[in-house]
Amino acid sequence: MVQASGPRVTVKSDPPLFGPRFNSELQQLFRWRRDVRRFRCDPVPEEALMELLEAAHTAPSVGNSQPWRIIRVADLANREAVASHVDRCNADAAHKYEGAEQEEYRKLKLHGLREAPVQLAFYCDRAPDAGRGLGRQTMAQTLEWSVVMAIHSLWLAARARGLGLGWVSILDPATLDKLFEVPSDWGLVGYICLGYPMEAEDQPELEKLKWQQRLPLSDILFQK
Amino acid sequence: MVQASGPRVTVKSDPPLFGPRFNSELQQLFRWRRDVRRFRCDPVPEEALMELLEAAHTAPSVGNSQPWRIIRVADLANREAVASHVDRCNADAAHKYEGAEQEEYRKLKLHGLREAPVQLAFYCDRAPDAGRGLGRQTMAQTLEWSVVMAIHSLWLAARARGLGLGWVSILDPATLDKLFEVPSDWGLVGYICLGYPMEAEDQPELEKLKWQQRLPLSDILFQK
Repeated sequence: MVQASGPRVTVKSDPPLFGPRFNSELQQLFRWRRDVRRFRCDPVPEEALMELLEAAHTAPSVGNSQPWRIIRVADLANREAVASHVDRCNADAAHKYEGAEQEEYRKLKLHGLREAPVQLAFYCDRAPDAGRGLGRQTMAQTLEWSVVMAIHSLWLAARARGLGLGWVSILDPATLDKLFEVPSDWGLVGYICLGYPMEAEDQPELEKLKWQQRLPLSDILFQK
Repeated sequence: MVQASGPRVTVKSDPPLFGPRFNSELQQLFRWRRDVRRFRCDPVPEEALMELLEAAHTAPSVGNSQPWRIIRVADLANREAVASHVDRCNADAAHKYEGAEQEEYRKLKLHGLREAPVQLAFYCDRAPDAGRGLGRQTMAQTLEWSVVMAIHSLWLAARARGLGLGWVSILDPATLDKLFEVPSDWGLVGYICLGYPMEAEDQPELEKLKWQQRLPLSDILFQK
């Protein structure tokens, strides 16, 4: 039996109207999103993780190039290699500071690589077919920036589900490229820890520990 | 009369619990966020704009460095200079394509610079005092990436209020640096158009016009 044919009608859903209640909760979401370094060990349900990856995949991208390539790092030897590498980079970074400031730096917990149940390496394909080069001839970095927005989408979606995300940047991308044997066109953007946080916080850890306070809006806003 | 004094008590608010309804609306927000190039001319209420800028200012930043510097471009001569510059860059970009593809490219409307009531240049201060260098010794681009997340926060907050945002990247940053006389440490990340969109859409314009389709999740997900 063939389907009755006729003009194909696409029924578009009505655009959503986001009301004051959603807007107020969205503001809360921005305010309570944190870079998490203290994770509980409970696993992240597989279904939730897939929804988060779908959220990442809705991010804006230059020319609709969708250049994010996500490696789920499950192998325990790979995870330990990343954690040891970051510990070494962090020890090196401490030497940038002197005296009391170095001591203060060393006390900071800057990653949860040994606890976070889910770990994702976000790469950028710097030569994607998708998008046909549109929009990035004068600013090639817009490809990497698209991947940053994919991470940020996942970050917000995670927090909305009570999950926490930590972005680890104290590492040498070349070491991870080699470990994961990525194609030469790929560039690392972020190594991401994901899991349930030990606690919820509305204040950045570096603010709480007096490393860096919030700037007033007037410091960052100009007019021309 | 002086206020009655006593121990200053900081009452911390309870962490918000984002329920299924919020999560479902957040998913809708990701799905209906668009890069907007067709704006109505209605002004954006000043109060809404300030709330959006506050949303941008809650974005994650490496070492809490808050490196975003936002120039509100209000001067009409400056706006016209940007629009003419982008038109020239876009005409150059068209030459990358040949024949039918060039024709297809030329038909795309890639910016709303002559209609958008609010225009913002997002810069990155590449040598901010804030953050004391933490987290960016091995990956200096994390500063610019923080600014990208500020733009993305504003983007989502705008859409939640029925506003649309368009990110213009077909331009030479040096031209805008000169126009706005920015400090030498500042680097342009995005030139942003903001206003009420002509229509709401859940499909990217470049997808609708068959420039680039959405990739399946399996194309971007790997395991190691």
